[in-house]
Amino acid sequence: MKRLKLGMVGGGQGAFIGGVHRIAARLDNRWDLVAGALSSDPVRAQASADDLGLARSYTSYEDMAKAEAARDDGIDAVSIVTPNHMHAGPAIAFLNAGIHVICDKPLAATQDQADDIAHAVENARAKGTHFILTHNYTGYPLIRQARAMVARGDLGQIRVIQAEYAQDWLAQAPDPDNKQAAWRTDPARAGGGAIGDIGTHALNLASFVTGQRPAALAADLHSFVGGRMVDDNAHILLRMDGGARAMLWASQVAVGSENGLRLRIYGDKGGLEWGQENPNQMTFTRFGQPKQILTRGGAGTGPDWTRIPPGHPEGYLEGFATLYADAADLIAGTGDGALLPGIEAAMDGMWFIAACQASSAKDGVFISRGQ
Amino acid sequence: MKRLKLGMVGGGQGAFIGGVHRIAARLDNRWDLVAGALSSDPVRAQASADDLGLARSYTSYEDMAKAEAARDDGIDAVSIVTPNHMHAGPAIAFLNAGIHVICDKPLAATQDQADDIAHAVENARAKGTHFILTHNYTGYPLIRQARAMVARGDLGQIRVIQAEYAQDWLAQAPDPDNKQAAWRTDPARAGGGAIGDIGTHALNLASFVTGQRPAALAADLHSFVGGRMVDDNAHILLRMDGGARAMLWASQVAVGSENGLRLRIYGDKGGLEWGQENPNQMTFTRFGQPKQILTRGGAGTGPDWTRIPPGHPEGYLEGFATLYADAADLIAGTGDGALLPGIEAAMDGMWFIAACQASSAKDGVFISRGQ
Amino acid sequence: MKRLKLGMVGGGQGAFIGGVHRIAARLDNRWDLVAGALSSDPVRAQASADDLGLARSYTSYEDMAKAEAARDDGIDAVSIVTPNHMHAGPAIAFLNAGIHVICDKPLAATQDQADDIAHAVENARAKGTHFILTHNYTGYPLIRQARAMVARGDLGQIRVIQAEYAQDWLAQAPDPDNKQAAWRTDPARAGGGAIGDIGTHALNLASFVTGQRPAALAADLHSFVGGRMVDDNAHILLRMDGGARAMLWASQVAVGSENGLRLRIYGDKGGLEWGQENPNQMTFTRFGQPKQILTRGGAGTGPDWTRIPPGHPEGYLEGFATLYADAADLIAGTGDGALLPGIEAAMDGMWFIAACQASSAKDGVFISRGQ
Amino acid sequence: MKRLKLGMVGGGQGAFIGGVHRIAARLDNRWDLVAGALSSDPVRAQASADDLGLARSYTSYEDMAKAEAARDDGIDAVSIVTPNHMHAGPAIAFLNAGIHVICDKPLAATQDQADDIAHAVENARAKGTHFILTHNYTGYPLIRQARAMVARGDLGQIRVIQAEYAQDWLAQAPDPDNKQAAWRTDPARAGGGAIGDIGTHALNLASFVTGQRPAALAADLHSFVGGRMVDDNAHILLRMDGGARAMLWASQVAVGSENGLRLRIYGDKGGLEWGQENPNQMTFTRFGQPKQILTRGGAGTGPDWTRIPPGHPEGYLEGFATLYADAADLIAGTGDGALLPGIEAAMDGMWFIAACQASSAKDGVFISRGQ
Repeated sequence: MKRLKLGMVGGGQGAFIGGVHRIAARLDNRWDLVAGALSSDPVRAQASADDLGLARSYTSYEDMAKAEAARDDGIDAVSIVTPNHMHAGPAIAFLNAGIHVICDKPLAATQDQADDIAHAVENARAKGTHFILTHNYTGYPLIRQARAMVARGDLGQIRVIQAEYAQDWLAQAPDPDNKQAAWRTDPARAGGGAIGDIGTHALNLASFVTGQRPAALAADLHSFVGGRMVDDNAHILLRMDGGARAMLWASQVAVGSENGLRLRIYGDKGGLEWGQENPNQMTFTRFGQPKQILTRGGAGTGPDWTRIPPGHPEGYLEGFATLYADAADLIAGTGDGALLPGIEAAMDGMWFIAACQASSAKDGVFISRGQ
Repeated sequence: MKRLKLGMVGGGQGAFIGGVHRIAARLDNRWDLVAGALSSDPVRAQASADDLGLARSYTSYEDMAKAEAARDDGIDAVSIVTPNHMHAGPAIAFLNAGIHVICDKPLAATQDQADDIAHAVENARAKGTHFILTHNYTGYPLIRQARAMVARGDLGQIRVIQAEYAQDWLAQAPDPDNKQAAWRTDPARAGGGAIGDIGTHALNLASFVTGQRPAALAADLHSFVGGRMVDDNAHILLRMDGGARAMLWASQVAVGSENGLRLRIYGDKGGLEWGQENPNQMTFTRFGQPKQILTRGGAGTGPDWTRIPPGHPEGYLEGFATLYADAADLIAGTGDGALLPGIEAAMDGMWFIAACQASSAKDGVFISRGQ
Repeated sequence: MKRLKLGMVGGGQGAFIGGVHRIAARLDNRWDLVAGALSSDPVRAQASADDLGLARSYTSYEDMAKAEAARDDGIDAVSIVTPNHMHAGPAIAFLNAGIHVICDKPLAATQDQADDIAHAVENARAKGTHFILTHNYTGYPLIRQARAMVARGDLGQIRVIQAEYAQDWLAQAPDPDNKQAAWRTDPARAGGGAIGDIGTHALNLASFVTGQRPAALAADLHSFVGGRMVDDNAHILLRMDGGARAMLWASQVAVGSENGLRLRIYGDKGGLEWGQENPNQMTFTRFGQPKQILTRGGAGTGPDWTRIPPGHPEGYLEGFATLYADAADLIAGTGDGALLPGIEAAMDGMWFIAACQASSAKDGVFISRGQ
Repeated sequence: MKRLKLGMVGGGQGAFIGGVHRIAARLDNRWDLVAGALSSDPVRAQASADDLGLARSYTSYEDMAKAEAARDDGIDAVSIVTPNHMHAGPAIAFLNAGIHVICDKPLAATQDQADDIAHAVENARAKGTHFILTHNYTGYPLIRQARAMVARGDLGQIRVIQAEYAQDWLAQAPDPDNKQAAWRTDPARAGGGAIGDIGTHALNLASFVTGQRPAALAADLHSFVGGRMVDDNAHILLRMDGGARAMLWASQVAVGSENGLRLRIYGDKGGLEWGQENPNQMTFTRFGQPKQILTRGGAGTGPDWTRIPPGHPEGYLEGFATLYADAADLIAGTGDGALLPGIEAAMDGMWFIAACQASSAKDGVFISRGQ
């Protein structure tokens, strides 16, 4: 299969998610990371590039977009792994330069930034330039299995969704040196708190699996840790455009929770449950029959999107890698990217953040899409 | 220990919960069931009494209350196990006759009925006559353990509560012959649907463990099965009087759920999780330490309220029996009944049902206690 | 249903299993406990009888057997809940007196005692007097479900059995005041250590479910705690008379295990797994299909032997009670007692203990039945 | 960090484990796969090399060893991923050529082959050439955590080991086209059946964690599927050289088991349990305290050997990759390879296979090391 060339914006020394993107891109051997603007600090940018053995290191994403677009061997795609408020600049620059964009979530820190990106994505689409948002949990094989089961009617008409994403790493005031905590709890850089960082993942997963998008929501946001400027616990009721009712809980103060992303879906014919921390199994019940345990690649599931036989667990990195593999197929023309989250999912997430904040500010009244 | 004499109203042939109360009363050998008005149908009442070998069978609870109060060997307490709309009559009659009342939940089908009972309870209290509501899940040893842990500060200040009670037995229209389904989905007899039948249990458990009562709520009730007159799925946000925020989900259409009552509590120092279907274990995490699995009577827990050593599972009947044992102690003067749900919990449940219906009717606005 | 009268030998103040038998006998309301020889110490016997409100207290089981047999309102059956070396005397006395015997397990402390009981059982059988051994775990509804599934061929030809019973209460030298530990680790009173106290349960369960009896075994017994005179850890390989191969592990030194009785059965068409600590669910897999979770009374299982609906857990006491209910049916002539463990299971257990000791003494060679 | 050059013998089109080795080698970005003798069939070798974009494709491992040793840019190490009976040839050739060898397990199909490899390893060691056996499960972070906990005494003196590896893919006669099944059930190519393919993994894991090696064993091997020439179910009792007693079950006919490798270790102070199918958590109990759930990288565990934060599951490929990363460190001189399985573990596995077969042939008598 054709190998592709990848660039990266952000992800220098000390960053978290950049390293994850790099492993994910490498795992299926489809991408070569060759260029980067890894840090806005030139010294750190170069040191980071040296660590990674990058062929080309830039100190500005604008320069990088221009230079790479001009090269015969320029990058095919760029991964944007900066904090949320730094997505719009590089995303627009690379899209405008005709370079495919793989962007971390949520889309942006503000609705204005998001709208600007959406505008650029629309223009780029006409020229065949793709935009992908790394809602990586959609890459888990059993999540894609669940989506296929809903689509073919195994659960019947979807009625109820229970989505949650619980962590505890912000249950107390973090160490001031914790850079991850610093920007993720800064309204200017992050936009939202738990709702943006993890709530958008839970929403996206619910939509991805059910095919229903959020139509209205009511939210009760709270910040339990003194001095925190963003929400650290969010209780949300949703009405989906296909008629399902949902509850969504996002929390960073749920002591004892590491990365508790969990999805439960109920239709009139069946129900299923999946949890991210043990992603290789899912339960499914047809009404009136015994509950089944479906395993990744096991009996009753498709072998798609898996690398190794059932019983040999795949994890977070493998799921993330599947997005990079799909992106490679999309760009190389060997796949249609139908399962890749794009600007629609991205804008749903932005609406979700804004609507949560608006509802909570009005004592939890329901806010409808279009309001 | 002193043995006591028990009567029963309701619970004749074909009923469900009456049989449960009888086993629960028998398990710890504190009660003799000696009298009953088991059915409003005289023939069925007598046949039911014969089945049980009751000494005295009545055809009306009014007669029974009078006659038993007049006997030297009259019953000490009566269990009321009729449908919700039939609680008020017997409860008031027996309380007024000076006979202790053990009443199934929720308290009543309407607020008026509930107020009448509450009035009778208040009068009876002055005379030392007790009223107990069988929120039986409070009898599980680990639930009492959790309450003790919260009370002594193991979890710190409680911030977040996640309570849920999911079933699937009403996911489709029930058989018309199903008497349990018939009255439980009839607004006149039941009062509410999922919110009353199971939602009140979830609320009660959350309050029992945390010591916080509901101060305000917003609800999105729904009825998914065509023709159903009561809610079968309820999504509720709560604000508790001690500052905790809660989500409560009650559903009778969650396919794959048998009796999924589950409680998760998070404070600033710790978090715990418990589920009714495997009630002999609970997880507890102190912030920053490994999660612990606490077992009923096992290391790190009190031996209280258990009958057999850890590892030998106790279940639903044992938990229910603990309420009868505590009631016996309270009535015999060998216990203070401090853990027994009474009229306060009962009235919280009635407010919960009414507030859910009111909020949902107003598109989910928050309704405060006192409004 | 006809009520029966029960007597008890052993089970006085401070004993453990006697109290369990009493609750089990009471739970389904078929038995009245009316007589007992609760202790060999007359003062303690009377005090214990007073605690229980027994009509008739004896100081010797011989007197009791004679006196009860002579009364018109004498006991129908006796429960023998003494230490193992004290089973034979009362069992034989009551059988010879024509009174049905319900005896705790294992059958006896020595093979000679066992043979004497077996002889008495044979004589009694001719007169319609029954002998029941309380291998109580056979009363769990899902264990009976498993047996039915094997019998009807759901698993095909049984090939492999994995049985284990792990505890940790003897992982260190017990407190000298611990009476339970004292007699259970005394060769004279107990006969065997882990093999007798818990290993026989695991063996019995394996046989009960598969219908295969032990044909040969090899054992590696060990005593890890200094000064202990009986085995506290047993590793056993078994060959069953129906061709299945089995492993059986019994341990009282497995730190972190409370009462870990677990059974896994594999045939050429299916496999199942069950664990006693969460006895209300079992997994079952048909070869090539998804694993199913079967719940007590839930979809795909029979409603037999259960008292309350699926999702409301039943436990150890309920399972134990089912043996008493079955015994009542057998004695009253309303049941055939086909599922009750009797002298055959009892003698299998005695062979198991002796063969484990013989094999281990010969460095683990296989010992065959009949050798 | 220094990048290294890797070659591969075996692993051409249609093979299984070769692909796993390649992902594992790639994941941490330490290795470039540049050469291979991927198949003994020249056409398939070349096609396979083309698929992988290999710089150099060979048709014989002898040629490859010579040519690569002679090049300035020759491979640093070779991965041998052929069936068991084809390990010795390439292993010896590359070792003799001074090229480090990473070899799949078990070491060989016969003891003679194993001895030859061991001899070559000994000679190579003197020249600084390393031999690594990919007992990949040792790369799971929690397995290394468990080893560290045993080593520092958290469990006290180890008494009991329960190791098992259960699968069901050979529960029925496999499709004749199934190449994996074909060689793995062929005595000439595989050496043993379940004992070699998976039993050696279970043994290795038990030894790796406890630091105790097998001293004696008794085995009851069986082949349940008609016509099968190797064991498909093995029941084994072990005595370890440090005094622990062990049971080991290896089965390929345990219906409902995908890849059920499970390890339980009990000492006088603590016990732990781990299962491969959900490798990111382990339970640990200190005697008399509540059981703890330890998670990969979570509270109470070291962050070592993990790539991503707790709660984001790592799996089989990540564990396997850790062996390649450690091998890179060992070869590059940046690590001591102390945790890498080598010839000692390999020869323990060969003894295990032979002793199982010998014991089983003698009706299960214990066979001691050195016999």
